[in-house]
Amino acid sequence: MHGGIAILGLGLIGGSLLQRLKGHNVIGYDTDPAARAVARQAGFTVADNTSQAVAIADLVVAAVPLPALPALLAELGTAARPGAVITDVASVKGPVGEWVRGPVRYVGGHPMAGTERSGFAAADPYLFNKAAWVLCLEADTDPTGWLELAAVLTTIGARVVPTTAAEHDDVVARISHLPHLLAATLAGAAADPLAQTLAAGSFRDGTRVAGTRPELSTAMCQANAAALDTALAQAITALQETRTALADNTLETLFRRAYDIRKNWPSTKTKTRKLDPNAADLRDQLLALGRQGGWLTEIEPGALTGEVPL
Amino acid sequence: MHGGIAILGLGLIGGSLLQRLKGHNVIGYDTDPAARAVARQAGFTVADNTSQAVAIADLVVAAVPLPALPALLAELGTAARPGAVITDVASVKGPVGEWVRGPVRYVGGHPMAGTERSGFAAADPYLFNKAAWVLCLEADTDPTGWLELAAVLTTIGARVVPTTAAEHDDVVARISHLPHLLAATLAGAAADPLAQTLAAGSFRDGTRVAGTRPELSTAMCQANAAALDTALAQAITALQETRTALADNTLETLFRRAYDIRKNWPSTKTKTRKLDPNAADLRDQLLALGRQGGWLTEIEPGALTGEVPL
Repeated sequence: MHGGIAILGLGLIGGSLLQRLKGHNVIGYDTDPAARAVARQAGFTVADNTSQAVAIADLVVAAVPLPALPALLAELGTAARPGAVITDVASVKGPVGEWVRGPVRYVGGHPMAGTERSGFAAADPYLFNKAAWVLCLEADTDPTGWLELAAVLTTIGARVVPTTAAEHDDVVARISHLPHLLAATLAGAAADPLAQTLAAGSFRDGTRVAGTRPELSTAMCQANAAALDTALAQAITALQETRTALADNTLETLFRRAYDIRKNWPSTKTKTRKLDPNAADLRDQLLALGRQGGWLTEIEPGALTGEVPL
Repeated sequence: MHGGIAILGLGLIGGSLLQRLKGHNVIGYDTDPAARAVARQAGFTVADNTSQAVAIADLVVAAVPLPALPALLAELGTAARPGAVITDVASVKGPVGEWVRGPVRYVGGHPMAGTERSGFAAADPYLFNKAAWVLCLEADTDPTGWLELAAVLTTIGARVVPTTAAEHDDVVARISHLPHLLAATLAGAAADPLAQTLAAGSFRDGTRVAGTRPELSTAMCQANAAALDTALAQAITALQETRTALADNTLETLFRRAYDIRKNWPSTKTKTRKLDPNAADLRDQLLALGRQGGWLTEIEPGALTGEVPL
């Protein structure tokens, strides 16, 4: 990165990133004048419009909500410097790539950090410390641009997880969107007052994310509808198998499998993995690292350092 | 209660009850000599065998695990004083009534309190404070015996919830057993390392009870297999409707319903309800109170005091 970094959207993610990168050549922008004023008052450099923000930026982080992304990416097609690396932070990756325009180098991103709070006021410069940050590596992703972005993110302490948009969308459907649907189902099973009076710990934990604002859960799930439908179908199949196991008195096998997964999560033991950034099959090596649950922690010209769970 | 109270089984529930009733005419017993020794050393009165424990007891609390209940209830049919009130604390109520023998007055019970810790060492005299304690009121339940037991439990701070064994088993299948099956399903959806690396808060909450020892979850669920199968079938239907809503882009209705249930739980606003213990339709009135999510807090000769959520 020789030029600057522009952060468009100063909510929780964009605001946290702006705060974390303070002192670097970074400029923020938000379409909301109030958000711009708050950030300026806090001492940050804030542009007056998108064009001004991205004029000298080599890296543009589009940290706006998913519905605002198509228009912003279209605008960046002409406003951004040719060859600039453009990334986003949306929770679904498949559709976003199709909205990219112009001679830019797009890398789809998704930081797995804080979704319940929102706004610049909730921003936290340490939000990304040890947080997984997905960076998509498609067949047509520019590897140099990908590594430049990865270098910025590892510098701020994030764990850069290489994967593809398709794999990302499949995984978040299962581990992030399906939990919201299961929680809603469980809450719906306790609509009667007697059930609510007898409900205790297992109900509390199992329904916690049902307390997310419905419009947020809805937007998140609908944006990943195709992958989520597959995850839902698999969950229904698993529950049908559970009915059979209950009838056959073989539930213990099923519970033990779940117990083993839960007890070993999150993985705390890892080993270091070194990769050669100049390897001809670097993309394959990085995607293999991601599939093994690994991530990058340091990007240097001659070596990439990562970790893999044992 | 003019005679004594015998507590058979000094695990978490029985031990907590023994500690809470210290100073009253109460005696404990456990088939495990080590548990008896620990309780004696802590200054409690402990019998050497079941017969000795129940010899002068007007109330016998069978606080043993479900598999030990049939034999114990058979033994109490001859060992307990004729007319003694016998209750249990098992998490399923349907089958237990059928195991009762002899001229005793059986009242099925289930305290909705602590299941993760176990043993006398984990016992806590305040475990039942404001905890719901289900007491079953069947067509053939002796109302005087029921009220005698309810009086002891309200005295120790429990919320006595009147219901039937069938309603209890239906409700706990939905709010206590189904959460374990949904948690296992969610854990099973994250069997691959990439999913485990990206999993965060919603996965953590949704799978927490999958960390319960598999043999305990299994025993609990299999004991309530019939009601749990119904709850599972309903959950599968709800998830199939969720797939349709996802396809129709109408998820928000579903999420809003779950959100409303979760945000109003647990109910914190209640109003007082007085019942006449001599009313001819007392059983119906008590069951109606339970169905409204209400409970009893005080049992006096002329008045029963309860609370109902607003």
